[in-house]
Amino acid sequence: MDSSEKNVFVIFGVTGDLTYRKLIPALYSLYARQLIPENLEIIGTGRKKISQSDLNARMREGIDLFSEGIKPEENIVDKFLSRLTYFSSDMSSPADYRLLKELVEKTDDKPAEKLNCIFYLAVPPGMYTVISERLYESGLGREDNGYRRFVYEKPFGYDLWSCRELNQKLHSLFNESQIYRIDHYLGKETVQNILVTRFSNGMFEPLWNRNYIHHIEITSAESIGVENRGSYYETAGALRDMVQNHLLQIAGLAAMEPPSSLNPDAVRNEVLKVFQSLHPIKEEEVASNVIRGQYTASVVRGQCLPSYRQEPGVDPNSRTETYVAIKFFIDNWRWGGVPFYMRTGKRLPVKVTEIVVHFKPTPHFLFHVDDMNKAVNQMIIRIQPDEGILLKFGIKKPGGGYSVENVNMDFHYSSLGNTRVPTAYERLLGDVFNGDSTLYARDDIVETAWKFIEPVQTAWATNLDIKIFGYPAGTWGPENADKLIEGEGLTWRYPCRNLADDGLYCEL
Amino acid sequence: MDSSEKNVFVIFGVTGDLTYRKLIPALYSLYARQLIPENLEIIGTGRKKISQSDLNARMREGIDLFSEGIKPEENIVDKFLSRLTYFSSDMSSPADYRLLKELVEKTDDKPAEKLNCIFYLAVPPGMYTVISERLYESGLGREDNGYRRFVYEKPFGYDLWSCRELNQKLHSLFNESQIYRIDHYLGKETVQNILVTRFSNGMFEPLWNRNYIHHIEITSAESIGVENRGSYYETAGALRDMVQNHLLQIAGLAAMEPPSSLNPDAVRNEVLKVFQSLHPIKEEEVASNVIRGQYTASVVRGQCLPSYRQEPGVDPNSRTETYVAIKFFIDNWRWGGVPFYMRTGKRLPVKVTEIVVHFKPTPHFLFHVDDMNKAVNQMIIRIQPDEGILLKFGIKKPGGGYSVENVNMDFHYSSLGNTRVPTAYERLLGDVFNGDSTLYARDDIVETAWKFIEPVQTAWATNLDIKIFGYPAGTWGPENADKLIEGEGLTWRYPCRNLADDGLYCEL
Repeated sequence: MDSSEKNVFVIFGVTGDLTYRKLIPALYSLYARQLIPENLEIIGTGRKKISQSDLNARMREGIDLFSEGIKPEENIVDKFLSRLTYFSSDMSSPADYRLLKELVEKTDDKPAEKLNCIFYLAVPPGMYTVISERLYESGLGREDNGYRRFVYEKPFGYDLWSCRELNQKLHSLFNESQIYRIDHYLGKETVQNILVTRFSNGMFEPLWNRNYIHHIEITSAESIGVENRGSYYETAGALRDMVQNHLLQIAGLAAMEPPSSLNPDAVRNEVLKVFQSLHPIKEEEVASNVIRGQYTASVVRGQCLPSYRQEPGVDPNSRTETYVAIKFFIDNWRWGGVPFYMRTGKRLPVKVTEIVVHFKPTPHFLFHVDDMNKAVNQMIIRIQPDEGILLKFGIKKPGGGYSVENVNMDFHYSSLGNTRVPTAYERLLGDVFNGDSTLYARDDIVETAWKFIEPVQTAWATNLDIKIFGYPAGTWGPENADKLIEGEGLTWRYPCRNLADDGLYCEL
Repeated sequence: MDSSEKNVFVIFGVTGDLTYRKLIPALYSLYARQLIPENLEIIGTGRKKISQSDLNARMREGIDLFSEGIKPEENIVDKFLSRLTYFSSDMSSPADYRLLKELVEKTDDKPAEKLNCIFYLAVPPGMYTVISERLYESGLGREDNGYRRFVYEKPFGYDLWSCRELNQKLHSLFNESQIYRIDHYLGKETVQNILVTRFSNGMFEPLWNRNYIHHIEITSAESIGVENRGSYYETAGALRDMVQNHLLQIAGLAAMEPPSSLNPDAVRNEVLKVFQSLHPIKEEEVASNVIRGQYTASVVRGQCLPSYRQEPGVDPNSRTETYVAIKFFIDNWRWGGVPFYMRTGKRLPVKVTEIVVHFKPTPHFLFHVDDMNKAVNQMIIRIQPDEGILLKFGIKKPGGGYSVENVNMDFHYSSLGNTRVPTAYERLLGDVFNGDSTLYARDDIVETAWKFIEPVQTAWATNLDIKIFGYPAGTWGPENADKLIEGEGLTWRYPCRNLADDGLYCEL
C-alpha cells in the first residue's frame, strides 16, 4: 500500500451506535498503529444536524470507551479526528451525492474515480439499495485508477428471496469483487484460528473427519436479553440474527476442505462447498430437527428478569424465537453421517461462543471407565470470551489398577503475554483497505446459507403446530433441545449450570 | 486378599540403603493405608550385628525422611515396626536358612509352605543365585496353599549371557510366575499412564503410528554425577544402568500394540513383541548409531564440578560411559521407518525423563511458518519430575495475515489437587502382594533387551576405534549426538540450556 496515496473512507450512518462503538475505535487503532494509510480522510454522513465539534467529541468518547487493548494517546486522537469531516445529508437525495462527490474530490483535487474510496454502509438494511443506487448514479461508484469498495453491514437480506434481490441489484451497479459483506464473527482472531488450528497441525488434521469425530457442537450463548433492541429483534429472531450468518460461517470454517491457497476466493470456494453440501432440512422435518424457544420471566440470584414478551418494543404475544437449536448433516466424503449441532440464544446462563468437537471413543475399552459418555475426548475451541483451546482426555487415575480419569488441558490466548489480539472490526477494516475479502461473505455463500434455513423459516411461518418453547431467563434453553443429540445419554455441553432458580420450561 | 491371612515379607539386605529409602517407607505407606494385609510380618536379614531397636530407629528415620505425600503417624509407625524382626545372618550359610525358616513358621505356627511369603532380594546381584539356591534347599522356596514370590532388584544380569544363566538357574528352582524382576520405572504412575493415554483416547490413538509420527525421543537425564556409587558405576555404565532396562521398557510401552486385556502376560507379550521387532544394531553400525560420552570437569555457576574420572572409586583412565545416545528402529507394521532415539546421561543440565513424540508436519504448508522445524507438533509425556503431558502445536499469530505461532498446552499431574500419586515402590510392592506381575520384567523380555544391546557392548569392548566423547558436566552431552537425528536442522529436544560455562566437548 502506497501510504502517500489518499484514501477516503465514507461512513453512512456516522452518528449511529455502530460507528461510535466499533468503526471509529477500530479505525483509530489501525491509524495509531500505522496499519492503514496515514493519508486517510474520513467523511461521515448522517441525517442529524450536529456540529463537527459535537461529532468529534462523541467520536473521541467512543475511542476512549471502546478501544480494546490500547490506551488512546490524545495527540494521535487529535490528528485522527482532524481527518474526519461531517456531512449532514439526506441519504436518498441525488443532490446530496453530488455534494458528497465534491467533498471527496476536494480531499485530493482529483476526480473521485482516481481516488481510493471505501463506502461503509452502517445503516439499516432497508437503505442499502437506495444508497448504492445513488452512489452509482452520482458517479461515486465508478473506479478508474483508484479502488472503490462497498461495505455492507448485516443482515444481508431477510430471507433467500430478499437476499437474491439485493445481490442482483448490487451486481447491476458494482462488481462482486467490490462488495464486502461484513460478518464480524469472521473478523475474530479465534474464528480465523479455526483454519490455522486445523491446517497447520499434524496432530489435529488427520483426526478431522468422520473416521474420528463423533459429532460437532457449535454454541453461541448470550447472557443478555434483547436490551433496547426489541423492535429490531422482533423482525429478526435468533435464526436470522445468528444462525444464518455467524454460526453457519463458523460451521463452514470448521468443516471445510483445505483450500488450495489463502487467496480470498480459494478459501470462500471451500466454505461454499460446505454450504452446498448441507443436507437440506425438509419442512416436515423442522419440528424434529429444529427447536425454538423464547425466554420467560425468572428470578436469577434474587433479581427478577423480564420475559422476552415484556421487553420494550416486543409484541406481548410475540412468537419470535430468542433461542434456536438445530441438527444437521453435511453430505460429503469428510462428514457423511456426522451430526452437527448448533444452538444460540439470549438470556442463557453465560456469554460463550465455542465449537465442541467430540471424538469417537477408542474401538475397545481396555480400562475401567465409570461413565461411557465421559470416555469421549473433546476439543473445545473457545471463540469468546477467554479465547483459547481446551482438550478433554483421559489419563490414568493415580493409584492401583487402571482406571481412567478425565482431565483438561487448556490453552488461553491471554497466556500469550503482551501480544495484543486485534478486534474483529480492526481486522476486517484493515482487510478492506488491503482489498482482502477472504473474511467477507460472498454473494453465493450468503444465498446458499439463506437457502439452507429457508425451509425452517417457511415451516415456522406456516405450520402453527410447531411449538415454541418457553425457557426461564438464565437457563440453557428448552430442555428438549437435548433430544436432538444422537446417542444414549448424550446432551449438549453445558459449560456452566442454569442460573434461574426455576429450571422448568413450558410450551408457549 | 484375605486380610486375616498371615503374610510374611522377608527382606534380604535390610540394613542397606534401598530398604531404608524405598522399601520400608513404601511398605509403611501401604500398611498405613491398609492396602496390604494388616497381618503382615516383616523379617529383615543382613550381616550386620545391630540390635532390633537400632534397626527400628533407622527404619523410623527412613519412614520420616522418605515417605512421599503422607505424614507418618507415630502410633501407626509403632504398630508397623512392631511387625519387623531383625535376623542377623550369613546369607550363604544353609544353617541360617533353617533358622530363618523357623522364624517364618513361628509367625503363624504353620509349616512355611502354608504361609504366604515374599522374599525381597535387596542385595548385590552377585548374591541372587546363592540366596535363591539356599531358599530352595531349605524348603523355604516351596509353596503349598500359600504363595511364594521372589523379588529381584536390578540389574538382572550383566549381559545377555549372564542374564540367561541367571534365568536358567532361577527356573531350575522356581516357576517364572513366582519371579518378580523389579524395574522401578514401571512402577511410576506416569509410565503406566503411557498405556492409558495411548489406549483410552480417541484423539491420540489414531495418530500413534508411522503415518502421523515422524520420530520419537526418549530422554532420561540426571543432573547429579555418580555421587558415592563410583565403584558400582564403573562396572555398569549408562548403557547397562539405564538403557537396557528403564529406557527400553518405556520404549516398549510407547510402541506396543494394544494388548487384548490387562492380564499381566497379555501386556508383557506386547512389550516382548516390540523388543523382538527391534532392528538389530550390527557391531559395525555401533559407531554411527550409538554415541557414548563421559563427563569432564567444568564450572557451573561458579562451582567446580569434578570429571567422572576424578570421582571416588573411579579408574582415572576409565572408559565407562556416563552418557549414551542411541538411534534405532522397530521393524513392524506400526513403526516401520520411524526412528526412535534414546539418550541418558549423568551430569546433564537438569533431571528429567520424558518421551517426545514428534508428529509429521501437515502435507502442505498453507500458512507462513518462520522455521519449518517448528511446524512439527510435539506431544511430550513427562515421566519425572513435574509429571504430566505437554502439547506443542500451532495457532494463528494474532494480527493481520495468517502466520503460525507455536504454543504450549500443558497438563500437570499436580493439578489433580489432593490426589496422591503413589510412589513406584508402593505400586510395585502392592502388586507383589496381589500377585500382579504386569509391571515386572519377564524372563524373555529381559533377555531380548540384553540381546538388543549386546552388539553395542561387544563393539565397545573390542573396537578401540569407537570414540568416547567427553562432555563438560552440566551440558547436554556430546554435541555430535545431534547427528543421530535424521532430518535437516533437527536436534534433540533441549528442555533447558547448558549450565556449564564451557559448552565444548572433547574426544577422550
